[in-house]
Amino acid sequence: MNNNEHNTAILRMHCPDQAGIITVITGFINENGGNIVYLDQYVDRNNGIFYMRIEWELDNFIIPKEKISDYFNTLYAQRYNMSFHISFTERVQRMAIFVSKMSHCIYDLLARYTAGEWDVEIPLIISNHPDLSVIGQQFNIPFEVIPITKENKAEQEAKEFELLERYNIDFIVLARYMQVLSEDFIARYPNRIINIHHSFLPAFIGAKPYHQAYERGVKLIGATSHYVTAELDAGPIIEQDIARISHKDSPAELVHKGRDLEKIVLSRAVEKHIQRKILTYKNKTIIFN
Amino acid sequence: MNNNEHNTAILRMHCPDQAGIITVITGFINENGGNIVYLDQYVDRNNGIFYMRIEWELDNFIIPKEKISDYFNTLYAQRYNMSFHISFTERVQRMAIFVSKMSHCIYDLLARYTAGEWDVEIPLIISNHPDLSVIGQQFNIPFEVIPITKENKAEQEAKEFELLERYNIDFIVLARYMQVLSEDFIARYPNRIINIHHSFLPAFIGAKPYHQAYERGVKLIGATSHYVTAELDAGPIIEQDIARISHKDSPAELVHKGRDLEKIVLSRAVEKHIQRKILTYKNKTIIFN
Amino acid sequence: MNNNEHNTAILRMHCPDQAGIITVITGFINENGGNIVYLDQYVDRNNGIFYMRIEWELDNFIIPKEKISDYFNTLYAQRYNMSFHISFTERVQRMAIFVSKMSHCIYDLLARYTAGEWDVEIPLIISNHPDLSVIGQQFNIPFEVIPITKENKAEQEAKEFELLERYNIDFIVLARYMQVLSEDFIARYPNRIINIHHSFLPAFIGAKPYHQAYERGVKLIGATSHYVTAELDAGPIIEQDIARISHKDSPAELVHKGRDLEKIVLSRAVEKHIQRKILTYKNKTIIFN
Amino acid sequence: MNNNEHNTAILRMHCPDQAGIITVITGFINENGGNIVYLDQYVDRNNGIFYMRIEWELDNFIIPKEKISDYFNTLYAQRYNMSFHISFTERVQRMAIFVSKMSHCIYDLLARYTAGEWDVEIPLIISNHPDLSVIGQQFNIPFEVIPITKENKAEQEAKEFELLERYNIDFIVLARYMQVLSEDFIARYPNRIINIHHSFLPAFIGAKPYHQAYERGVKLIGATSHYVTAELDAGPIIEQDIARISHKDSPAELVHKGRDLEKIVLSRAVEKHIQRKILTYKNKTIIFN
Repeated sequence: MNNNEHNTAILRMHCPDQAGIITVITGFINENGGNIVYLDQYVDRNNGIFYMRIEWELDNFIIPKEKISDYFNTLYAQRYNMSFHISFTERVQRMAIFVSKMSHCIYDLLARYTAGEWDVEIPLIISNHPDLSVIGQQFNIPFEVIPITKENKAEQEAKEFELLERYNIDFIVLARYMQVLSEDFIARYPNRIINIHHSFLPAFIGAKPYHQAYERGVKLIGATSHYVTAELDAGPIIEQDIARISHKDSPAELVHKGRDLEKIVLSRAVEKHIQRKILTYKNKTIIFN
Repeated sequence: MNNNEHNTAILRMHCPDQAGIITVITGFINENGGNIVYLDQYVDRNNGIFYMRIEWELDNFIIPKEKISDYFNTLYAQRYNMSFHISFTERVQRMAIFVSKMSHCIYDLLARYTAGEWDVEIPLIISNHPDLSVIGQQFNIPFEVIPITKENKAEQEAKEFELLERYNIDFIVLARYMQVLSEDFIARYPNRIINIHHSFLPAFIGAKPYHQAYERGVKLIGATSHYVTAELDAGPIIEQDIARISHKDSPAELVHKGRDLEKIVLSRAVEKHIQRKILTYKNKTIIFN
Repeated sequence: MNNNEHNTAILRMHCPDQAGIITVITGFINENGGNIVYLDQYVDRNNGIFYMRIEWELDNFIIPKEKISDYFNTLYAQRYNMSFHISFTERVQRMAIFVSKMSHCIYDLLARYTAGEWDVEIPLIISNHPDLSVIGQQFNIPFEVIPITKENKAEQEAKEFELLERYNIDFIVLARYMQVLSEDFIARYPNRIINIHHSFLPAFIGAKPYHQAYERGVKLIGATSHYVTAELDAGPIIEQDIARISHKDSPAELVHKGRDLEKIVLSRAVEKHIQRKILTYKNKTIIFN
Repeated sequence: MNNNEHNTAILRMHCPDQAGIITVITGFINENGGNIVYLDQYVDRNNGIFYMRIEWELDNFIIPKEKISDYFNTLYAQRYNMSFHISFTERVQRMAIFVSKMSHCIYDLLARYTAGEWDVEIPLIISNHPDLSVIGQQFNIPFEVIPITKENKAEQEAKEFELLERYNIDFIVLARYMQVLSEDFIARYPNRIINIHHSFLPAFIGAKPYHQAYERGVKLIGATSHYVTAELDAGPIIEQDIARISHKDSPAELVHKGRDLEKIVLSRAVEKHIQRKILTYKNKTIIFN
């Protein structure tokens, strides 16, 4: 799970499907001394697109790390019309948590972090309310309170952005952060803000989804983690799950039963992001296994 | 499961919640020689409503069957402002299946019926296409083909209604019947037409839900069985379930994976209906266990 | 969820099934001014046993709290051959957590506790290792380290018992406590020690169940919470759940995937215990809903 | 789903893991004019074994079909110490169903077959009881009744074997066939007899697993499909699933609830076998996706 003992490169790419593409890429790695430790690929035959995630050990790889992207681009990406991204496990990603008043998701994230389950750093928590500041103290992580109103939103988001820069944050997890981010803010972190919505999207978009679910009389409730885009609750879905309910459950009980769902679904999505196993294409995610 | 060896009465009722209501009803049954074999009750505290399903053996019950409703109404229902319905297991319900071109749901229903799992009669299948008429022959059930176009809908539904009357049909199961029923037709069978919609309602209402699901990039697909009301896919939900999918699944594979979901969800709903374990209230179902 | 605003009595009972038993008990409560807020009952027809959990408000109940058990025993329990237990929500239960080196279950328990989800006190953590003592500090709960070896087991358990007495502990949660308790110890807390076993019991009893699961090549892993009895992993099961795995999962990945399962299954069981919704009978649990 | 419009070859193989093995195999196919339409591979790093399923179109493949195995063996398999099997989708597999008195599994199999969901032929049903012979008539499939007693087992199995030969049967599905096959019989169809056991193996091996489950008080029941080996219920597991139950379920209700589980789990396993997506290694299955 924890990859930080490995010194590997991870290539995520897609391109028009064509014969021999796996041979080309595995050949590139093998011939230059890389030992492939992971390969997962998938062909979307309806749309003719090839997707791959491949990971290899760098110890005996003869191309210097900082030049791999350049070489790969010149030798293959341009020729085969690939979009690609190369990352290195040596570089531990830095994650910020945004939170409001509910603690179940942030506790679940921090419990995993503290146990060393994830190869990530969490140097910053931002909240629009002071209620959970004790969690910052418990886990010894800076907890910045930045209250937001309609009037001060732009300047407060500027403060948030300044903090994110100062702490070198790579991606943001909205752990039941009850505040809509501005389009400008979202645009700075494309596919790098993970939200948890407490419904089975696209059902019950927007406010109070459990109450909507209660009104409709559904027999299952859901939770959805997705990357945040400018359109509310409409970004690429990373993970979803459901729980069985019955007519006996009041809205308050749906809220109660939904908490476990939310925290597990969010943490699964964050784990996939940390492991660099997500590739986003046209508002959908490819989740490598 | 099969109750036809029992000679029991089933009371389903709801009323404003009030102290002592269980005592009153169980007292009525006990004092008149009825042996209670089932009791499930539920109080909706938010809205102050009491719901109950109670079943008792009639062998030594001193009130004649045909007078039970009248007595109960006079002695209790009016006093406590109850809505109630009494049915008798001796009376086997008669079910019609409506089908189009897909066979997975109807085979699942008939396999259970043939195995004697359900205390029901299925004397009639109606289809708007001849494709599955062999199933009528296989199971020796009249299979009536009634093609429907925009122009002939009213007269063809009249034919259907005539058949339903002739066969003394109590309730209708739409086993992937790809034709919207008219409001008039629906009004004749309130809470007695069970449909299966191939999505997790209220997501993906209407046509081609699997294609909608594919477009949205969800990670789970669903199926929903519900009573049919005048508004499309908006009736009281009886049962829902989901299956996990991935980015690898094409729309065709979603259709394939959805079949098991559809047939199981529909059959579960039909079973609950046959067992008279559903009570409908304000576009929601109470499902007794 | 949190019942401590209510002042209610909870009766859990079972007796030989007989006509009129619900009428008798609901009558007892109604006639003495109790307002019933919960009733769930179940008849095991194979064995002829009636089970019930009933809860009523004490505000206008004319029998004094301390005499309810005595009255109920004299007036009904002896006559109807009932086993029963009456508890009061006013009395908040006190729970101790036993832990070893793995933190996922204890964090999940304490996150719920801290969020006020549960009507319980957690005044004591006991561990056989010092590794997680920081958690005691984080949540400001006494964390007692009591290392156990084969040689010192009796005397160390005596220390534990002394602590449990001092803190007035009602029940114990073994949150992946990797140490078998002595029969004497268990006998002091009948149906009051909740364990989480990391398999789908009765499969893979004993040590290293994930490795056993890997060896057998199962396609699902499970977790089971149960009351501890003298026989290892054989006590009454409270809750179970599973997660899907594949041939790709190494034993280490099973351990990783199992963590979420373990913590959720344990917390669900603890919640049911706190809500006094469990009744144990002959090595099985009745879980009221 | 239905592959018979394609003319493809499928290679399933495993070998000691080594650098470049994917490049070698995809190179072999590409260089000889094959168009790869499927590739799924997996490396068991604990044991150092590489597994792959690869499928390619034969239309422009320059090696004649009947020589592919020979060429592949000579050029690669021996060199890389591979175990491999090549099959052709043009060749439709022939499946026999063995059944006793319960119809839910066989109806589920035949409903899929009749709907054209599977690229398979089912020319033969064998039963040790005449009860379900009507199913043979319904689906127009020879239904051979071969009653088995302890005394006549060897000669009756000889008759079965003769029938299986006569109908060119490739693999056998035991659709709740309540008769243990002899070791000799099993040895003739290695990894080609699929059974459904009505428990979550390895829990509740042998007779009456639902009754065993009831006695133990589990909260979930399961079903397991596996290849039959000489040791009872101990063969390689293909698929498992579970359903939630409660203390309210009698053994008869477990049997009832288990039926859906059994039929779906068995059909999923049969589908994977038909699609040639299973590779068996040391009493475990690799299930390609």
